[in-house]
Amino acid sequence: MLVKRFFDPGLAQTSYLIGCGATGQALVIDPNRDIAQYLRAARSEEVSITHVTETHIHADFVSGSRELAAHTGAQLLLSDEGDEPWKYAFAREAGARLLQDGDHFMVGHVQIQAVHTPGHTPEHLMFLVTDTAGATQPIAAVTGDFVFVGDVGRPDLLEKAAGVRGTMHDAARSLFRSLQRFKTQPDYLQIWPGHGAGSSCGKGLSPIPHSTVGYERLFNWAFAVADEEEFVHLVLAGQPEPPTYFADMKRINRDGPSFLGGIQPPRRLAADQLPGLLARSSLVIDLRPAADFAAGHVPGTINIPLNGSFSTWAGWLVPYTADFYLLCDEHTQNLEQAAWALALIGLDRTAGYLGTDAIEAWSAAGRPLETVPQTSTGALAGNTGATPLVIDVRGGNEWEAGHIPRARHLPLGALAGRLGELSRDQPIVVHCQGGGRAAIGASLLQAHGFTQVASLTGGFAAWEAEGRPVERDAVPVPEGETAR
Amino acid sequence: MLVKRFFDPGLAQTSYLIGCGATGQALVIDPNRDIAQYLRAARSEEVSITHVTETHIHADFVSGSRELAAHTGAQLLLSDEGDEPWKYAFAREAGARLLQDGDHFMVGHVQIQAVHTPGHTPEHLMFLVTDTAGATQPIAAVTGDFVFVGDVGRPDLLEKAAGVRGTMHDAARSLFRSLQRFKTQPDYLQIWPGHGAGSSCGKGLSPIPHSTVGYERLFNWAFAVADEEEFVHLVLAGQPEPPTYFADMKRINRDGPSFLGGIQPPRRLAADQLPGLLARSSLVIDLRPAADFAAGHVPGTINIPLNGSFSTWAGWLVPYTADFYLLCDEHTQNLEQAAWALALIGLDRTAGYLGTDAIEAWSAAGRPLETVPQTSTGALAGNTGATPLVIDVRGGNEWEAGHIPRARHLPLGALAGRLGELSRDQPIVVHCQGGGRAAIGASLLQAHGFTQVASLTGGFAAWEAEGRPVERDAVPVPEGETAR
Amino acid sequence: MLVKRFFDPGLAQTSYLIGCGATGQALVIDPNRDIAQYLRAARSEEVSITHVTETHIHADFVSGSRELAAHTGAQLLLSDEGDEPWKYAFAREAGARLLQDGDHFMVGHVQIQAVHTPGHTPEHLMFLVTDTAGATQPIAAVTGDFVFVGDVGRPDLLEKAAGVRGTMHDAARSLFRSLQRFKTQPDYLQIWPGHGAGSSCGKGLSPIPHSTVGYERLFNWAFAVADEEEFVHLVLAGQPEPPTYFADMKRINRDGPSFLGGIQPPRRLAADQLPGLLARSSLVIDLRPAADFAAGHVPGTINIPLNGSFSTWAGWLVPYTADFYLLCDEHTQNLEQAAWALALIGLDRTAGYLGTDAIEAWSAAGRPLETVPQTSTGALAGNTGATPLVIDVRGGNEWEAGHIPRARHLPLGALAGRLGELSRDQPIVVHCQGGGRAAIGASLLQAHGFTQVASLTGGFAAWEAEGRPVERDAVPVPEGETAR
Amino acid sequence: MLVKRFFDPGLAQTSYLIGCGATGQALVIDPNRDIAQYLRAARSEEVSITHVTETHIHADFVSGSRELAAHTGAQLLLSDEGDEPWKYAFAREAGARLLQDGDHFMVGHVQIQAVHTPGHTPEHLMFLVTDTAGATQPIAAVTGDFVFVGDVGRPDLLEKAAGVRGTMHDAARSLFRSLQRFKTQPDYLQIWPGHGAGSSCGKGLSPIPHSTVGYERLFNWAFAVADEEEFVHLVLAGQPEPPTYFADMKRINRDGPSFLGGIQPPRRLAADQLPGLLARSSLVIDLRPAADFAAGHVPGTINIPLNGSFSTWAGWLVPYTADFYLLCDEHTQNLEQAAWALALIGLDRTAGYLGTDAIEAWSAAGRPLETVPQTSTGALAGNTGATPLVIDVRGGNEWEAGHIPRARHLPLGALAGRLGELSRDQPIVVHCQGGGRAAIGASLLQAHGFTQVASLTGGFAAWEAEGRPVERDAVPVPEGETAR
Repeated sequence: MLVKRFFDPGLAQTSYLIGCGATGQALVIDPNRDIAQYLRAARSEEVSITHVTETHIHADFVSGSRELAAHTGAQLLLSDEGDEPWKYAFAREAGARLLQDGDHFMVGHVQIQAVHTPGHTPEHLMFLVTDTAGATQPIAAVTGDFVFVGDVGRPDLLEKAAGVRGTMHDAARSLFRSLQRFKTQPDYLQIWPGHGAGSSCGKGLSPIPHSTVGYERLFNWAFAVADEEEFVHLVLAGQPEPPTYFADMKRINRDGPSFLGGIQPPRRLAADQLPGLLARSSLVIDLRPAADFAAGHVPGTINIPLNGSFSTWAGWLVPYTADFYLLCDEHTQNLEQAAWALALIGLDRTAGYLGTDAIEAWSAAGRPLETVPQTSTGALAGNTGATPLVIDVRGGNEWEAGHIPRARHLPLGALAGRLGELSRDQPIVVHCQGGGRAAIGASLLQAHGFTQVASLTGGFAAWEAEGRPVERDAVPVPEGETAR
Repeated sequence: MLVKRFFDPGLAQTSYLIGCGATGQALVIDPNRDIAQYLRAARSEEVSITHVTETHIHADFVSGSRELAAHTGAQLLLSDEGDEPWKYAFAREAGARLLQDGDHFMVGHVQIQAVHTPGHTPEHLMFLVTDTAGATQPIAAVTGDFVFVGDVGRPDLLEKAAGVRGTMHDAARSLFRSLQRFKTQPDYLQIWPGHGAGSSCGKGLSPIPHSTVGYERLFNWAFAVADEEEFVHLVLAGQPEPPTYFADMKRINRDGPSFLGGIQPPRRLAADQLPGLLARSSLVIDLRPAADFAAGHVPGTINIPLNGSFSTWAGWLVPYTADFYLLCDEHTQNLEQAAWALALIGLDRTAGYLGTDAIEAWSAAGRPLETVPQTSTGALAGNTGATPLVIDVRGGNEWEAGHIPRARHLPLGALAGRLGELSRDQPIVVHCQGGGRAAIGASLLQAHGFTQVASLTGGFAAWEAEGRPVERDAVPVPEGETAR
Repeated sequence: MLVKRFFDPGLAQTSYLIGCGATGQALVIDPNRDIAQYLRAARSEEVSITHVTETHIHADFVSGSRELAAHTGAQLLLSDEGDEPWKYAFAREAGARLLQDGDHFMVGHVQIQAVHTPGHTPEHLMFLVTDTAGATQPIAAVTGDFVFVGDVGRPDLLEKAAGVRGTMHDAARSLFRSLQRFKTQPDYLQIWPGHGAGSSCGKGLSPIPHSTVGYERLFNWAFAVADEEEFVHLVLAGQPEPPTYFADMKRINRDGPSFLGGIQPPRRLAADQLPGLLARSSLVIDLRPAADFAAGHVPGTINIPLNGSFSTWAGWLVPYTADFYLLCDEHTQNLEQAAWALALIGLDRTAGYLGTDAIEAWSAAGRPLETVPQTSTGALAGNTGATPLVIDVRGGNEWEAGHIPRARHLPLGALAGRLGELSRDQPIVVHCQGGGRAAIGASLLQAHGFTQVASLTGGFAAWEAEGRPVERDAVPVPEGETAR
Repeated sequence: MLVKRFFDPGLAQTSYLIGCGATGQALVIDPNRDIAQYLRAARSEEVSITHVTETHIHADFVSGSRELAAHTGAQLLLSDEGDEPWKYAFAREAGARLLQDGDHFMVGHVQIQAVHTPGHTPEHLMFLVTDTAGATQPIAAVTGDFVFVGDVGRPDLLEKAAGVRGTMHDAARSLFRSLQRFKTQPDYLQIWPGHGAGSSCGKGLSPIPHSTVGYERLFNWAFAVADEEEFVHLVLAGQPEPPTYFADMKRINRDGPSFLGGIQPPRRLAADQLPGLLARSSLVIDLRPAADFAAGHVPGTINIPLNGSFSTWAGWLVPYTADFYLLCDEHTQNLEQAAWALALIGLDRTAGYLGTDAIEAWSAAGRPLETVPQTSTGALAGNTGATPLVIDVRGGNEWEAGHIPRARHLPLGALAGRLGELSRDQPIVVHCQGGGRAAIGASLLQAHGFTQVASLTGGFAAWEAEGRPVERDAVPVPEGETAR
């Protein structure tokens, strides 16, 4: 039995190729849209991809299962568990075999058994992997978003992201029961999870790539909670806001993701096309580092720096229904990386990109650049008047754990939808924890006509490190619950 | 003015990106289907592709002009010269600007002037490039398949490849007149041609990448011939057989090449799928080196080694109208290279590939492998009987320059269509010059049921080097002409 | 805690980078000479390599520990266990900290505890890894060549490879005791081993990359043997012959491996230099696939195909004390890969390489090429006379499990040293299991003046599959033991 | 004859591989230290590097000739022209053949003739290349730094960079005579120069990669000047300041450049090592874009952004005699690129690098970051007082063509050596043309204790575009001359 792990750092997402060297067959679990990586691995391992499956209907990236199965002629296997409307809608059309709890299939001499593990999603499966050539018991469970190293998959996405009201408490109870069942597995069973640290599919994932049932039994908080109600309370508390694009992803992955078929580098636009784009209200995303953007950018553009969080914030802020444009520093930034990060979450409408010559041309034509001024923590602390308005764009759990006393909480993901609550006549200071999200937030405000926007140097981290006053909520409560 | 040259070694084909650094505009001339290379170059040079053109309707590769223009939003410019039916049929639909002799356009500060240069094809243009920022005269002519370093573009393809009868002599006269006109250009003008050594679009191309009018005037045979009739005779003499796929290419490039949109690695098939493929008479191409194939291959597969001639022979031997399969050594061979080489000539129907495990599995199942035995030149020379039949698969000009006395001439490209002329009851020895083409020819014969096939060790080169008898045609004549 | 695994497929060897994201410190365990891979990983993970260690004095590759520590300024940690003369001789000079059983050190918040596990080597350590930020117990044991997935490290190398007589039984007993101690570890503890399938450091390694104590307790043969004597017998039985270069490796790694400092591509020699090299008895290694070599090679060259076994056979056959030359097909073979494979085992004296033009030039100058004829199993079985001599170059355990009745056993690794036992006047048929080793063996014989050498088509695998007679040894015995 | 051109964009430097396909021999002209690129090209073209030469003793990069010849066993050929002390000092030791005007040698069928062309340097040669297989006259002149496309090589480096006083006028006269001789070459002869736009070895180089004698005769200013005195005046006027490292380069390349032997990625230092480095006055170079540096950097570090000008400014500002450290954004910046750029100009003492975590750690420890404030052109124009001091760090010719009226001219390359002229008690505004050099200059000032440093937004380009007052020198004069 051979095993190959694929990890996408932008999504913190893991796929697995599990093959049988003796028969040359192989299975891919949870492929994303970059199917070339699995094809290349199969080539180098000298196996053929004969089976493709996934643990559940993913919310955070476009599934590559359908395309990979079609491209390889492999059998597609999809969960038949869960209820309408959250069952695979394209399974029949794609000729998939449906899997129910307890079903198993062979990949050469490797046996794969499906186990229904609802909680994160209703149809969720995990896969027990047994190398029948050398063993009679499973060596590992491919757990998807059920059990992570150090955490479990959040059960609130269906409600919060897909908008199915009133489901998260039931889902949390399902998760609890799935977990009790999982705890009967032997200590030595390895856990090969679907995500690592950085994913929005949980709240406390470890960067350690794999673990065991026995180790998680000792050190994973969720295994230690014996009371169902307590578990429900704890698992729902402090979950990060799910990105808005999760709703689209779940629907796309349920109804049948389209085929990507490889991507081409985006076309480069001439510098003098930028004014026209902005005049037509096109979305232009400046990929440069926040400091570059702050030092001078074209008014109307927004800043989503091309760093490790790019996928997440692009998913929050870029619509699926319109063309958009990129602006980047061609010398130091990897445009292919941006194009792939967008494609992985289904944002296929990159209509072109501009180089920094577009900024220079803007300026050379006598049009002013906009900057994002910095306000120091000292200046902010010293300013006891009503102004400026301090906007904290961090997540709910960060806010609850402590915030600047007079700040207003507007999580970055929600900001675009709540601009109507804010006055354009008031100075605004935006901050987050360190500065990354504040930069995006400030750019959003500026692009919507707020002209008195600054960002707080060092963010809340600096504020706190300097010993300035911090306000805390009395009792952190799970979002969507009223305090008990 | 900036200039970037792109050279595809498999096609021996050249494209050019010519840009204006001051304005950021750029033109691509004669792009092939790998349009990502131009997009990347534009990015690294910080220019935008605003114009795309080509010198003529290519016969040897699928044009990327249409896709590149569509992807970049660039203006497409196509020749309006020549007559029906060999005029661009998709020009209007693609919104192209039509160019006639003398037309010019600006790419920033770079002026491009179209000059009608019929001969290789009726609509052929060359482009005079003037860097108006620093000069008042052209620095170079982008000559396409009109003038090469050391040769001129062959005028017989329309007749021989596209089957338009009776055109090659007129085309040769057109070429002569185009050349007389070209000879009025100043000595210092650079020549940036469309092909280098290895192309089938001429017969004596140099590997030197660029030349000048003055240098070619001195050392290019075609510039030295003052008499039209003599030129016609000489330019038609000794041209290599055009690959069969040239006809498809010309039609595709005239009617509008389809978009490639990036390619995915082909899928890997399981070893046990090979027998089924062969049972259904699918074409399976073994890409391994000829020696590997000769040492043992699965009966029914043909051998087109993945070397520098792969594009050419794939173009000769692989049909556009059916799926086909590859078989390769995954450890040592670059499957991506094969997939690209096929895509560049429009062979998009690679339905999968097999590894060498398919050969092992074939053998392990008790099915015999086939070999290609070697016959030594000594054994062949010593065998004065009627058998074996010696088949020389080299080109016409090679044959005319000297061949083994009792050999029969069946050029490799024509072999597949003339198998009916041969008896399966007779031993056959296939040879070419060195061994490359003989390997392909022997595999073709074997795949069609000839069981007594061997190849000649060292080929005609060895035969000749050993001083064995050689027969020469009395007077080499242009193909398609009767001797005068 | 972050973990990154590095696997070299040629050596089937694993290194680990274990880091602490919070403090930015990192440890590398068992680095090989390609230290750039660890430097790049540290960069992408944003950690600094502050500690470097290794589990033991490696026998199968040159250690990169010393160079990596020197290049990064990291602390080098080396085992202080074992006795002279097999203790690290360069530890003091390199400023290393010496580790004894029970010692531990911190890499940021990650605790590493050394455990003495003699057996494979006297000084062998394994490392227990505890992520103190989230746990109080180890998550994994980095076991080096002590415990593999499905096997244990062989205890006979010191005797067989390094020539320390009379040590392998004692070492086997040490290994038994180390194993008993290891079995007290909890089931959930992960095992991160130093080798996978393909290594010569054991006999039955699995390709599965990691396991657990509980899983190995169930399915690893070595964990099931409770009796020490039985264990000693079994662990020594059927071990493959250790490559000759292991002795050099152990000495080099004990005394202090030299620094590589990056490698340059080897220089290309002109085709006409080959005759001179052979005239001076230089070693010229033809890297082409066996079939190519068999179809025609320059007499005097030997064939070590550049495939997955290249490192192993280069280690067997190439001396450390003289320059050598490579010959390869530049179009299809990756010369950088060959250069790295050689460098990893310390073969730094590649003095240049030749292309296949050297073979053509040899032939064109009228010098004959040599071939390796094939003998079919049928022909061999039908030939009941005294000749030819059949030489089986497989390993001892393969031989014992069954061989061609009248064959003579000369393992490939020993062949070069035992040519004196063979007559040059007799036809010889060489075979192995499938053909790979026979090709090398036949080339060795030819290069030493044996002119009547053929190889058996399909090898012993074909012979056996066809149901031909097979002879088996009465009782397989561990090598180095007399039968009991 | 085959030709391959190598262009290093950082140095704007060109090398050539010229080979003979028939004999497999090849020559490399003007190799730089990245010799692997020539070895790889030779492999892909299937030729052996049998000859290595260079046009002259380079001033702008470390020559790779000596190492390439040693690695390949090729014959090294070096100029024997010129006088002491500027003759090759290592020629004998390296076994080089010395070339004088008119000497020629064969590379297979390609004839190379050396022509002495003093001017840029006393020993300078150009090479006439004749493809004797197909021609009797040269096809091209490899002109090195004698003739460029659109310019000629500057004759003032020996005086200005190497400090040989009183040589530049004589050198200019030599150059004039070399040029008159060159003008007798035929129009069609191609010119393959040693540099393109961006090099400091001339003042008006074109980005066009190659030209012809006839074209340059028409459009190159230097060909049009018939009067020697006028030529001397014009060629010396407006030359950019030569980087300080040119002196080291010339000496190194004369005396024998050391071998690089491949480079390793630099080691990553822990974030907490930065304070210690600065405390020991180590040079720490922040490679981030200027805007990032301006938004916050560690006091004491200097900013040389890793862009197209990195080599140049590193050559100006980094000493050869001490270790130095890099600081970069590991996510977006290519550290290998930086390491190579440094190695190409002989700056081998990179002792490690730091990530941006070092900046965060600095800040988190309560130490303040330093910023580079921006002054707007409006604010500067409105400020009519004595302060701030405006420092223009552009080159002499830019200054002469127009500058801000009350500015002080301190070219960036000279700034470090003239800090003593400036008061630390005065606000300073630094500017260049667009901002790139000002960023470096401001960082230099800050690192030397100037605390009131700002940079001018948009630089002189913005100032001029806005129509603000500009002062021009009455008569631009060649540097080093008194006005006539």
